[in-house]
Amino acid sequence: MVEESSRKRKLEDQEESESKKKRKYDGFERTTTLEELRRAQVDFANARDWNQYHTPRNLLCALVGEVGELSEIFQWKGEVAPGCPKFSHKEKSHLGEELSDVLLYLVRLADQCHVDLATAVKDKLKKNAMKYPAEKVFGSSKKYDEYKKSN
Amino acid sequence: MVEESSRKRKLEDQEESESKKKRKYDGFERTTTLEELRRAQVDFANARDWNQYHTPRNLLCALVGEVGELSEIFQWKGEVAPGCPKFSHKEKSHLGEELSDVLLYLVRLADQCHVDLATAVKDKLKKNAMKYPAEKVFGSSKKYDEYKKSN
Amino acid sequence: MVEESSRKRKLEDQEESESKKKRKYDGFERTTTLEELRRAQVDFANARDWNQYHTPRNLLCALVGEVGELSEIFQWKGEVAPGCPKFSHKEKSHLGEELSDVLLYLVRLADQCHVDLATAVKDKLKKNAMKYPAEKVFGSSKKYDEYKKSN
Amino acid sequence: MVEESSRKRKLEDQEESESKKKRKYDGFERTTTLEELRRAQVDFANARDWNQYHTPRNLLCALVGEVGELSEIFQWKGEVAPGCPKFSHKEKSHLGEELSDVLLYLVRLADQCHVDLATAVKDKLKKNAMKYPAEKVFGSSKKYDEYKKSN
Repeated sequence: MVEESSRKRKLEDQEESESKKKRKYDGFERTTTLEELRRAQVDFANARDWNQYHTPRNLLCALVGEVGELSEIFQWKGEVAPGCPKFSHKEKSHLGEELSDVLLYLVRLADQCHVDLATAVKDKLKKNAMKYPAEKVFGSSKKYDEYKKSN
Repeated sequence: MVEESSRKRKLEDQEESESKKKRKYDGFERTTTLEELRRAQVDFANARDWNQYHTPRNLLCALVGEVGELSEIFQWKGEVAPGCPKFSHKEKSHLGEELSDVLLYLVRLADQCHVDLATAVKDKLKKNAMKYPAEKVFGSSKKYDEYKKSN
Repeated sequence: MVEESSRKRKLEDQEESESKKKRKYDGFERTTTLEELRRAQVDFANARDWNQYHTPRNLLCALVGEVGELSEIFQWKGEVAPGCPKFSHKEKSHLGEELSDVLLYLVRLADQCHVDLATAVKDKLKKNAMKYPAEKVFGSSKKYDEYKKSN
Repeated sequence: MVEESSRKRKLEDQEESESKKKRKYDGFERTTTLEELRRAQVDFANARDWNQYHTPRNLLCALVGEVGELSEIFQWKGEVAPGCPKFSHKEKSHLGEELSDVLLYLVRLADQCHVDLATAVKDKLKKNAMKYPAEKVFGSSKKYDEYKKSN
């Protein structure tokens, strides 16, 4: 009896901590830079003599492969709500890995193309802000669509 | 004659500066963090009331769309050397934009799935280092392939 | 008054014919073969001297580009019901074009890789039938997923 | 000695037949229609009660997954010549399977969107012929690119 109730308490604690883990999502870790990821991959490829395989089109094919694996996670799910509340812990962790694989190949592709992705992405953010002025596209899916179409 | 030679000099300067610009690629700008990109997009969507459109599967479809635009840049090129030396300035700049679009949707997708992409990608780097031990896969495309296949 | 009612009748006729058009979908036109599409593209490329651009990886990049355009059609739609009842006539026709572009590059890619796609696809249908025995996977999404995962 | 030479002969025969197999590629099997593939998949899904999972966006995600697997075949290959002469028999057969998987999901997606893919693709072939008049784009990659860009 004692064992039973202690086991039950343990399970409840676990569930609570699980749910806390889910509740506490608060954005990304603060310090990770794109340059840090680029540098890590340069070191990784150098240590293995793999630069020879990392030509732009090889990396593009690898990137498309990883996007495919990311897409497979969502393939029989129907609509998925923000936060993926119905994903198991395992699925969520798998999702994190596939998102990471796409990111790593994207960073490596930019680097092997000699594109400064950090500068490029900040330029793009500025361009988007000018392209979609908040007051003109606010809350309107129609305007959103039209704006997007003229992309 | 003077004009001619001055025009020639100008052209040479231009070429030199162009080639300097190409030579001087030295990785990414140092400070940009993933969290900064995430935050910028949260503000962007809030200001436009666009969170309603940014469900995980909508963002996945948008990401695939941008990967398609990235792929189109490489579609009739044949093999492309590292650094994309044959790309015009315009193509290089277009490439930077498409790489950025993929990155922005990837960051937004991770955020709307409540995945801390910065932590996930660092975990993945560690996992990759263990999966492909440098001494075992060094410089061998065969071993590389086998290792990759067991991915 | 007469005009008004005649205009109304016209509109009703139009809607009825529109809805008839939608209702009457009854599968694909019966005679089109994969070989016919392959042959049409061989002739098309020959007439334009474009075989030189149609290497396997160029075509793969082009295919990925078209998949991106297909995905864009669905990107801000949320869940879409079978038959796409909310798509406008224009969207439906655009969808038909993008599906066709993917098909055409897929056929051309198979051809340039010297893969007999018609035979390959029939072999795959047989393989799938053995892999997912109807009695074992009937109506169960769980079993479906498990079966799919072991793919 | 006799054994040795008989084994050698066998190997030569095998190589010859292998090379004959490769040489003899002559397009696709002639009779397979798109409608036949569509019908096969309707029967397949009905027998397994799987129509419930085959919504347009689920199928799109699955299609993107298969395109990823197709892309992975080419990811560390560098440029691949027409006919894929360096692919092993096993790789060629794997390639046939992935091309087939993309085709099957494409056909199924069109069907679940109520798009007659056979009619749509023939319309697209006509449209392409008008868009790229042979005499204007003949053999010029520049013109080809420009024409493609205005796509």
